[in-house]
Amino acid sequence: MKEYSKSKLNRVKRGNKRATYDVEKINTILDAGFLGYVSYIYDGKALCLPMGYGRKDNKIYLHGSNANRMLLTLIEAKEMSMTVTHLDGLVLARSGLHHSVNYRSATLFGTVRKVENDTDKEAALVCFMEQMIENRWDEIRPINQKELDRTLVVEMTIETASAKIRDVGVEDEPEDYDLDIWAGIVPIRQIADYPISDKGISENMKIPEHVLEYYVINKS
Amino acid sequence: MKEYSKSKLNRVKRGNKRATYDVEKINTILDAGFLGYVSYIYDGKALCLPMGYGRKDNKIYLHGSNANRMLLTLIEAKEMSMTVTHLDGLVLARSGLHHSVNYRSATLFGTVRKVENDTDKEAALVCFMEQMIENRWDEIRPINQKELDRTLVVEMTIETASAKIRDVGVEDEPEDYDLDIWAGIVPIRQIADYPISDKGISENMKIPEHVLEYYVINKS
Repeated sequence: MKEYSKSKLNRVKRGNKRATYDVEKINTILDAGFLGYVSYIYDGKALCLPMGYGRKDNKIYLHGSNANRMLLTLIEAKEMSMTVTHLDGLVLARSGLHHSVNYRSATLFGTVRKVENDTDKEAALVCFMEQMIENRWDEIRPINQKELDRTLVVEMTIETASAKIRDVGVEDEPEDYDLDIWAGIVPIRQIADYPISDKGISENMKIPEHVLEYYVINKS
Repeated sequence: MKEYSKSKLNRVKRGNKRATYDVEKINTILDAGFLGYVSYIYDGKALCLPMGYGRKDNKIYLHGSNANRMLLTLIEAKEMSMTVTHLDGLVLARSGLHHSVNYRSATLFGTVRKVENDTDKEAALVCFMEQMIENRWDEIRPINQKELDRTLVVEMTIETASAKIRDVGVEDEPEDYDLDIWAGIVPIRQIADYPISDKGISENMKIPEHVLEYYVINKS
């Protein structure tokens, strides 16, 4: 599949020249982060919460404790939606209504199942950690059965999705370009600062390669 | 009001030692950004979209075109929820399940009305722009009646809310502190790069004070 098919649910209505249904483009947005906003209905009301996720192919993995209200609600609903957005800049126009932001945003819709098998649960947790920071799982204390037992893992299969990307300059009304008003872009980025060792870490222990690599890739 | 009262809807269930219902603390989280995730129900499904907002006292303002599906749905539902989160760091623990992030996240619940009066609409748009970048509204081309007429402004009154803040170090199992595994925090921040003038801007036009000020406050 190269493109998600358009339906009533995922078709972008406003600003559809910025819309994409391209699977690879949407995966690129998902893989540029690890924090998504998961929507659910509670007591008849829609709400969303930020959640770490891992993506593998067309699957999204979430986890939490066995008592996690949102995850239990998603399993019961058998479906979910998640939105991931990266803010790339302020768009400062000559008129108020042409102010905007540059961004990459993907909204996913899919089916949900609880992951039951321990091997699959661990694989999902590895996927989750790889999404946050690569190459760390093998360097930490292995997960034990007690931990696996008290962890709820949810798998979403992406059934359809859409994304919106704005990555251009200011777009003002034609007659406003002659005005003596400054317009432009203020680029926005998310960066990492130098890692801070935990209080229990001896001064002789070096910061591992995979952590320094994350820092180098993400520093300002 | 100093604290939002706790109800079934806003009471934080998981990790409630990190919860706060303090109005000022929640306002501080809201005022540290301008992009929220607004949840709504469409065709029986919950979804959320990123939206710019302005806050004044206990009111949140959103706007869009008169045909904006989400805003029209919110007006019909007469209620909405919005979540605002700032990511502050990766928490890299000695075991997988103690990995976390440092963050500040607020979730609001409230009633919704369409703003009808032109004066109130413009005031809401000023509030919206001030939230994104201060002191710009008076420097741009004034809004005209045609623009006001085709803009839908929605006002949410915050009825209840909660926030979760994690701003501490690694919290591992007591027996894991002796392991020869590096643990620590990688701080994460959102920064601004130097403003880029629009293609139509003459080289003689200086970047205005309010834009440079935004850059200086937010640069790495």
